[in-house]
Order: sequence, then structure tokens, then C-alpha cells
Amino acid sequence: MANSPSGDSLLSRFVTILGAFDSHRSSMTISALSRRVGIPLATTHRLVGQLLGERLLERGAEGEVRLGVRLWELASRGSRTTDLREIALPFMEDVQTVVQQHTTLSVLDSENVLYIERLTTKGSAVNITRIAGRLPIHACSSGLVLLAHSSSEFQDDVLSRSLMRYTENTVTEPASLRRLLAEIRMLGFASVPGIIVPTTTGIAVPVFEAGDRVIAALNVIVPLGEEDLRATVPALKTAARGISRALGAQRPRDIGARIRPGS
Amino acid sequence: MANSPSGDSLLSRFVTILGAFDSHRSSMTISALSRRVGIPLATTHRLVGQLLGERLLERGAEGEVRLGVRLWELASRGSRTTDLREIALPFMEDVQTVVQQHTTLSVLDSENVLYIERLTTKGSAVNITRIAGRLPIHACSSGLVLLAHSSSEFQDDVLSRSLMRYTENTVTEPASLRRLLAEIRMLGFASVPGIIVPTTTGIAVPVFEAGDRVIAALNVIVPLGEEDLRATVPALKTAARGISRALGAQRPRDIGARIRPGS
Repeated sequence: MANSPSGDSLLSRFVTILGAFDSHRSSMTISALSRRVGIPLATTHRLVGQLLGERLLERGAEGEVRLGVRLWELASRGSRTTDLREIALPFMEDVQTVVQQHTTLSVLDSENVLYIERLTTKGSAVNITRIAGRLPIHACSSGLVLLAHSSSEFQDDVLSRSLMRYTENTVTEPASLRRLLAEIRMLGFASVPGIIVPTTTGIAVPVFEAGDRVIAALNVIVPLGEEDLRATVPALKTAARGISRALGAQRPRDIGARIRPGS
Repeated sequence: MANSPSGDSLLSRFVTILGAFDSHRSSMTISALSRRVGIPLATTHRLVGQLLGERLLERGAEGEVRLGVRLWELASRGSRTTDLREIALPFMEDVQTVVQQHTTLSVLDSENVLYIERLTTKGSAVNITRIAGRLPIHACSSGLVLLAHSSSEFQDDVLSRSLMRYTENTVTEPASLRRLLAEIRMLGFASVPGIIVPTTTGIAVPVFEAGDRVIAALNVIVPLGEEDLRATVPALKTAARGISRALGAQRPRDIGARIRPGS
């Protein structure tokens, strides 16, 4: 396959261009795009021309380019992500109605937490999650749930790294993190105050798929100090069991059925 | 750019491969994929290898391939589709709660109706829409709403074609279709019984964006004979105004404010 002078494949350059767009920069001129991705302007023009031809990019009203609806369609039609969020959505609405806080669904991808759905509640806590946004695995309740249910090899790999400390509550020391993961497995949920944003607490539970493997985390984000675990955790666990059953999990495990007294 | 013997660009072959997956075929062996897209097996292997390398495809448990979460992330992060559905979702939930029927949101893309969100209601009517699925513009209520608010050039183009008749109620004759579109503009909604599936009626209203251009259609699907337009249309119009305002439409037009007596 034809490679660029830098050795990148053509496909990887297309992916670099598509990856330059996000919720903050949803449209750009071709010059701005060229600067952002570090590909010479003439090459960017040529690659963008091809992406426009396949409708993976579209032209906006002022000649700028943006992601095409066709790209969204390609990615969504046969995607397990689309199926998962469609199955989970009614259960997430139930949680949001009962708990009245932001509710998210996320999966593990490339050692990050990738948020695939988010229902926001007006006037509630700060919510830094975004649909298709990522957070570090050790610094959010969903990540800790997903890590707690990962293979020990994967856990060792994550724990062997230098983990970023976002707030004074972020747990980064390996032995402490191992204790936290064991507690999360035992209780069946994670409740972690202010580990990435000092003013919020994340509460998350695992979602199982067929074969009883953990596939996702269901989470609510509440203002720090307003956690009501006795009410929130049963709502989350009930919804997670519903999603797991709909995904074909044979008998969603009843882990951590009881909340610790005093928690 | 290197083209295949058939003259297709490399990018178009990647798109062909990604486009082979849908909700019925969400994973395939490479041989099945090769047959489905009509690309020789050795070439398919090589292209799939590159797509796996960029994580646009993933390997399943038995070696088959499927769309990668990375593709969904690329398509969703900076996408107007994601923004639109996130803005619309709470309003769609309101409609579903009040009307208790399937509720969809769709946009016009390449002369088809592309469904970008769907909330299903158990035990309700047959629902042939799928998220990221398409229906023909003249054969669903959402398509007729989008067509009614399109440019006259686009309308002429669609009406000049030979349109497929799906049921005895599908309107395909140009003069009748023009009358139907005028009525939809006047009333501010489309209510069309059994034009694609004989047993259901679609009811749809337009959603406006900044500049008061119609960007989407909001729709409910009800069993034929159970239409209650006096209740359904105000719920749809109210929700569509809310979405339009959130999208920056200055003053969502109050078209067809009154439902015709007897309708």
C-alpha cells in the first residue's frame, strides 16, 4: 500500500483526518485541518477530496468541512455499540427518572473508558462525560468497575504504570488500588468521591453480556455530599440486571447484594 | 492514489468493506466478507488487516470480524448527528411517555430518510425503522415531511422518478404527491396510513434548525385505525418546537397550528 514520506499508510492518514473532528471542533477549513493533523496542505486537500467523494466528510455552508452523516451511518448500522445503547436506553431512562441525576453507559476500549450514552439532568452535578468521549480507567467510577472485572493480566498492566493524580482523592498507589478493586467486586458497585472532579461522586455498577462477561458500566454522577447509596445502588443494580438479561446474560450475578451498613 | 484493477480507489474499497456490515450481519468471516463485497479473498485479507490495524474492525471470539468501537467513536465525536440526537432525546422521551407509541427522529441523506434515533414501545405497532436504517422518502411520513419542506428543485427531481408502490396506499403519481405535500405544509404534519406497511400509520412533524431550515422529522408509528391525531399531533408539535428552539431556530414556525375539524 502506498505510504506517505513519513511511512504512515493511506488508511492511517484518513483516520487521522477523521479523528481531528470533535465536539469542540466539529467543522474546519482545510487549512486549519492541515495544521491540526500535521499533513501538508496539498496532501490534505487531496485526501479530503476523496473523503468528500465517499461522503465521509461533508462541506458546510462556508466551504469548511465536517464529518458526513454517511460516516455515522457506516459506524452505526452493524455496530455492537449501537445495539448495546439501544438495549440499555429504556433502563437508563428508568434510572434517571428514579435517581434524578446524570446517567451514563460506558465500555472499555484501548484501556480507556469510552462513554456510549449519557442522559443529562438539568441543574444537577458537573458532568464532564460526553457521548464518544473518554476518561482514564483509574479516575472514574465506571473505569474502576470495568477494571475490577478485567483479567488479572490487564489489571497488572494498568497498575504497573504511572497513573495520573487528578485530585487528592485519585487512587494511584498500586496496593491501595488493588484493595479498592477487591472492594468493588465484593460490593458489586463503585462509589468514588471526587477522583477526577472534586465536586462530584460517581457511582457505577457492572453490566453483563452472554457468557456473564462484564461488557459495560452503568453510572450516575451526583454532587459530592449528596450521595444516597441506599437509594441509588439498588436502582442502578436493578437496571443493570435488566440490561444484562436483555443482552443474554444467563443469570446476572447477584454480587454484593447488600450495601454495607453505614455506607 | 493506487486504484484496484476495477478502478475503485482504495478508500472506496475500505468503505465497501465497512458498509457490508449491518444489524443482520454484524460479524462475518473474511471469506464471507470477500464474497459479499465482491473483492478477491487475498485483497480482502489485506484490506481487513489494515482496518484491524486502525481498529476500525475488530476480531470476534471465533476469528470473524466486526465493526470496531473506534469506528463508532470516530463517527460520533464530532458528528452533528450525535449532537442532534442528544438534543432531541429528552423531547422524544416526552412524546413517548405521552403518546405511548414508537417514536423516531430522522434526517434526509442522499434522497433517503435516515433514522438517527428510535424509542420503541413494547406491544405497540410493527416498527420497521432501525437506528441508522433507511426508508424511501415517498413511502414514510417522515420522508413526506422532509420532502414537503425541501427545495422545489429537489421535489421536482424526486417526483420525476418512477417511485416504488409498496402498498395500495403508497402515493406515487406526481400530481397526487404534490397535493399531499402541499397539504402537509399547510397542516404542519403528515399522517399517512399504511403507505409502506399496511398495518401502521406514521405521523410526523418537521424540526427546524437555526435559520429556520427543516433539519429533521419527528415521528410516531401507531397501529392502523388507532390514530388519535387530536392528541398525537399537539404532542409531536410541542416536542418539535422544543427541539427546534434548542437547535437555535429563532422562532419555530407555527405552521398548521390547528388540526382540521374531523381529522
